[in-house]
Amino acid sequence: MVEFKASNPQFETMLRTSFAKQGVMAHIGAQMGAVSPGYCEIKLPYSDDVSQQHGFFHGGIVGTIADSAGGYAAFSLMGEGEGILTVEYKLNLMAPADGDMLIARGEVVRPGRSLSVCRADVVVVKDGVETACAVMQQTLMRIVGRTDVSG
Amino acid sequence: MVEFKASNPQFETMLRTSFAKQGVMAHIGAQMGAVSPGYCEIKLPYSDDVSQQHGFFHGGIVGTIADSAGGYAAFSLMGEGEGILTVEYKLNLMAPADGDMLIARGEVVRPGRSLSVCRADVVVVKDGVETACAVMQQTLMRIVGRTDVSG
Amino acid sequence: MVEFKASNPQFETMLRTSFAKQGVMAHIGAQMGAVSPGYCEIKLPYSDDVSQQHGFFHGGIVGTIADSAGGYAAFSLMGEGEGILTVEYKLNLMAPADGDMLIARGEVVRPGRSLSVCRADVVVVKDGVETACAVMQQTLMRIVGRTDVSG
Amino acid sequence: MVEFKASNPQFETMLRTSFAKQGVMAHIGAQMGAVSPGYCEIKLPYSDDVSQQHGFFHGGIVGTIADSAGGYAAFSLMGEGEGILTVEYKLNLMAPADGDMLIARGEVVRPGRSLSVCRADVVVVKDGVETACAVMQQTLMRIVGRTDVSG
Repeated sequence: MVEFKASNPQFETMLRTSFAKQGVMAHIGAQMGAVSPGYCEIKLPYSDDVSQQHGFFHGGIVGTIADSAGGYAAFSLMGEGEGILTVEYKLNLMAPADGDMLIARGEVVRPGRSLSVCRADVVVVKDGVETACAVMQQTLMRIVGRTDVSG
Repeated sequence: MVEFKASNPQFETMLRTSFAKQGVMAHIGAQMGAVSPGYCEIKLPYSDDVSQQHGFFHGGIVGTIADSAGGYAAFSLMGEGEGILTVEYKLNLMAPADGDMLIARGEVVRPGRSLSVCRADVVVVKDGVETACAVMQQTLMRIVGRTDVSG
Repeated sequence: MVEFKASNPQFETMLRTSFAKQGVMAHIGAQMGAVSPGYCEIKLPYSDDVSQQHGFFHGGIVGTIADSAGGYAAFSLMGEGEGILTVEYKLNLMAPADGDMLIARGEVVRPGRSLSVCRADVVVVKDGVETACAVMQQTLMRIVGRTDVSG
Repeated sequence: MVEFKASNPQFETMLRTSFAKQGVMAHIGAQMGAVSPGYCEIKLPYSDDVSQQHGFFHGGIVGTIADSAGGYAAFSLMGEGEGILTVEYKLNLMAPADGDMLIARGEVVRPGRSLSVCRADVVVVKDGVETACAVMQQTLMRIVGRTDVSG
């Protein structure tokens, strides 16, 4: 993992404030975990609201938190008055998301003035054991004059 | 659009029965629209449960119904006792999903014995006018012995 | 397919001039076929230079001409003094590219001030019959001050 | 990076023999670098055959060697009598491939009985300094009865 320097020294406050405003994330019970410059973890406990017919986390939910983890990773490198918009992402679902907690770990691969590239690894935790269940590769765009991550 | 022939003459019942069982879809208010062999439409009315901070449909929700439309398009060509699993998808978010109804139209590009390729176009409807807001390209896998679409 | 209007009335000359300058395309024998606003066809006759070990067109070559067809489709909508750069693409290889001619048909899905989204369908022609062998979805960026398509 | 165990103890010979048979790879001057179970490096020195109009490595070439590095990484975990076929890949071109040597490093993220997921990082070397220029995420399929990597 590459080391990055945040341009906004208050990047952690910026991330947690933005995340708290996202209705859907609160609605499904997602929490922001560890953050550092160019890195962000999103955690989601299992509930009926995020499950599919076999009792696993729904694939759309896996995509949603992977996208979000990558978006906040990119956002952590933004300056004041700048936001982040997802241009596109590609998600491989590698194993059933069978467990009690989903964790998406997003990291910046290349930050850019206009476009940034991120990756996310998603694991599912069952009885304390992590299993990789999805990987994502994503393109994001810096937007000026809107301080958040557009979900 | 290529014309396909369903191998299961009851394909429409098969799709609507499977869709009705998907908890997340009912939970967010999604409905199955028109279906034909190799084609499926998923509609989602706007609500607070599916919105982000700017009052648009959330990007994760756009991905979820695009994935679902492609999945059911592929499922429509399956035989009895066969199901569909998403291997991966790639989604371009092209415009804010600002409107009162989201419609994802999934179609099979190439059906396969093992893997199928689908595309989906997502539009948002506002005051009766459709605007394209996302496009998806997806790989799916046929699974034997489980008659549904794994979300 | 959506109808687009070229902002440069000389768009066809602009495309063919740019294509002629691309060393790799000439090197492998690729030709530009039909073009219209938001659309471009690239054709490639079979030769040893573009084959893999089984005597089919190489997958990397399929990706190269698909990327190129999408890039020139986007370029056709650019104004004078503007160029196009591929940000990313996703390619599904659906069938062996077994034939004597490969044709990639790129089209713009959504043109944008900054980013454009394109798709391409690739077919292989054998004894006069076309078979779909790949589909691509792609993001491109407008660049000002460089009139070409960066391969 | 996850540690994998090769099921074929002669995996390195298997990879180098298969690579040597790939006409296109030899044609453009590509070489196989370091290999280990689940990992493969492909190197390509700069030449006119692999350049575009600005004197950089062509984007299609970047995709070709990234796809190949991921394919051979997956192939390294195959048993005797098994081969690998690319199902799809997604490539982000992050910076101009401006340099004298291109290196693609492919690694298996998740090996599977049927499908495997790989990633590749592509760097360009100029005056001894490596710059990241592309990242790829890829799905591959195991094929029985054909011992090679289909390009």
